[in-house]
Amino acid sequence: MADQYAVPADPAPSSLTPALRWEEPPEGPVLVLLDQRRLPTEEIELVCTDVPALVEAIRTLAVRGAPLLGIAGAYGVALAAVRGFEVDDAAELLAHARPTAVNLAYGVRRALEAYRGALKGGAGATGAAEAALDAARALHREDARASELMAAHGLALLKELLPGGGLRVLTHCNTGALVSGGAGTALAVAGAAHRAGQLRRLWVDETRPLLQGARLTAYEAARAGMPYTLLTDNAAGSLFAAGEVDAVLIGADRITADGSVANKVGSYPLAVLARYHHVPFVVVAPITTVDLKTPEGAAIEVEQRPGHEVTEFAVPQVPGSGGEAGSGVPIAPLGTQAYNPAFDITPPELVTAIVTENGVVSPVTEAGLAELCARSRSGNGMMSI
Amino acid sequence: MADQYAVPADPAPSSLTPALRWEEPPEGPVLVLLDQRRLPTEEIELVCTDVPALVEAIRTLAVRGAPLLGIAGAYGVALAAVRGFEVDDAAELLAHARPTAVNLAYGVRRALEAYRGALKGGAGATGAAEAALDAARALHREDARASELMAAHGLALLKELLPGGGLRVLTHCNTGALVSGGAGTALAVAGAAHRAGQLRRLWVDETRPLLQGARLTAYEAARAGMPYTLLTDNAAGSLFAAGEVDAVLIGADRITADGSVANKVGSYPLAVLARYHHVPFVVVAPITTVDLKTPEGAAIEVEQRPGHEVTEFAVPQVPGSGGEAGSGVPIAPLGTQAYNPAFDITPPELVTAIVTENGVVSPVTEAGLAELCARSRSGNGMMSI
Repeated sequence: MADQYAVPADPAPSSLTPALRWEEPPEGPVLVLLDQRRLPTEEIELVCTDVPALVEAIRTLAVRGAPLLGIAGAYGVALAAVRGFEVDDAAELLAHARPTAVNLAYGVRRALEAYRGALKGGAGATGAAEAALDAARALHREDARASELMAAHGLALLKELLPGGGLRVLTHCNTGALVSGGAGTALAVAGAAHRAGQLRRLWVDETRPLLQGARLTAYEAARAGMPYTLLTDNAAGSLFAAGEVDAVLIGADRITADGSVANKVGSYPLAVLARYHHVPFVVVAPITTVDLKTPEGAAIEVEQRPGHEVTEFAVPQVPGSGGEAGSGVPIAPLGTQAYNPAFDITPPELVTAIVTENGVVSPVTEAGLAELCARSRSGNGMMSI
Repeated sequence: MADQYAVPADPAPSSLTPALRWEEPPEGPVLVLLDQRRLPTEEIELVCTDVPALVEAIRTLAVRGAPLLGIAGAYGVALAAVRGFEVDDAAELLAHARPTAVNLAYGVRRALEAYRGALKGGAGATGAAEAALDAARALHREDARASELMAAHGLALLKELLPGGGLRVLTHCNTGALVSGGAGTALAVAGAAHRAGQLRRLWVDETRPLLQGARLTAYEAARAGMPYTLLTDNAAGSLFAAGEVDAVLIGADRITADGSVANKVGSYPLAVLARYHHVPFVVVAPITTVDLKTPEGAAIEVEQRPGHEVTEFAVPQVPGSGGEAGSGVPIAPLGTQAYNPAFDITPPELVTAIVTENGVVSPVTEAGLAELCARSRSGNGMMSI
């Protein structure tokens, strides 16, 4: 079941309401999510007291973004365990709530393994639930730390690729604090560049159909005081042609063994434009996004989302708008069929570099990626391999 | 001044309400426009009794599309002349209502020259006004005929380029009967392919920010019974990558002497994707769109439109929504700055062919384009040059 918290007006406008937090009020533990469907006009929190509510929040994109989905999945398993629900069923439901981001299944598996391990070790139900919660919290902390490392590695890479500074960076979808336990992935790098006085302009693709760029990245950029400009996804080509883009920074939902990158639909056209204009195309993602078991891009299951996301406009201010067909404002003739893949696949030959908390791989090769995955976080991640 | 006609429910759903018509009710002549901002949900006609109303309709895109703007400009001059307004001032206002489409200035100039010629010839005010109206009507008829010829030449070209048939055509923005005195430009070619049993799928880019694809092309395709699927502009890359696009067909707002094509923003990224995937990129436009006086793409003035078209969503059902800042639904944080060019420029090396009523130029060269412009319409336009 999901309930709502009203979020009081923020006294410090630069601080973001956390995308996700675990709370233990007297009525029992809950997972509290910032409802990203309602941003930027309203900050409403969804309170999940069980896994079906969390699965619904994941499916409808109230909570979204590859790293955050992993954390949400782990906390979901803990929630089921702590509240005494069937943990295996809950894990199954959660792991399949969305198919493309590998992090979701990873987070679920990690909490589930901790739970099962504790049970086997004789911890009992309470102890096992605590183990699951500890695993979720550890993942949450690690993700925050991974953000810091990705930001540092990414900034070092940008300085190496573009030593002149004064960067004009194009980004797509939302990859900031709203998708992460920390500052995010690609947007964390842009934020680090901003704090280092190196960011001249952040170009924000609006990211149709769900406008995560316009609604969420613009919101985070405004809060952080970054110099940002919004554009339709269509207008990116004009920026490239005018020489106004120095680098593209995007996140990833799954990176296969060969270095193919599944990310928000619209990423691949940017990669092709970047190549045509000799602009670096840089992918920033935690190592948990790398899926060495999937050999190549063609093997990734790309989520097809409902056509009404395209044929209707979901009004952010209207609760439930866009949640199902007929609840939004129609923008196409009735009966119009839509093609609505949530992601696209960029092949490794179009990716200049992949930045993770473990370091950078550039050029992107299967061996380099495998080595990066094997590397411990304490290693010298700053070196390109 | 603009008034509204209600359009009665259409008894034959396949027939379109004309985009523009001249009427002479007892109160005096008027130019009646189908208000394209309200489609597809409502068919409302705007009745222009003077040029300022028409200029407003052009600026706010109630009437739009390069060929139709030419016709509207010519009728606008006739309207001023017939109603006894200052014709030179009216022509000046009309010619500069929007900067990029060359057809608008052409239509205005043509009616104005007819008017001035008749005055010089001693026709008197009434006779000169009639000459202007005759010129507008001639342009209207010629444009309808040009549509037929472009459709024929375009279909012949497709058969030559893609002899297998069963075409999957991607189009952008709206280039059909709503932009023309006839069946349009690129969409007229797709329509001819459909009637010839050659169109397997019409992929319709939604065309942000004003959604001319979702609202207008989908409307025309549905009326014509074409097999069409709508997609966000972002999703086109996935279609190319999957080998689902056989050809791109787009219109043009201005074609310079070197063959650079100004068209709706988002066309250039499609051209780059088409080149990367070895897919023909075909531009269809009347010869009046070719502007031999402008040497190259860099010399074209690209209209920058208000940022609120990007930061707010104009609800088609709400009159005035989106007409000015603050009248739509906000989709980005307050104060967000937007980059909103209406057009982009595709260089000739990315254009497979330009199809006009005079024939086809492929490959696109300055000499070939000049020759096409010089060619009379009675010539053998079917030959590539």
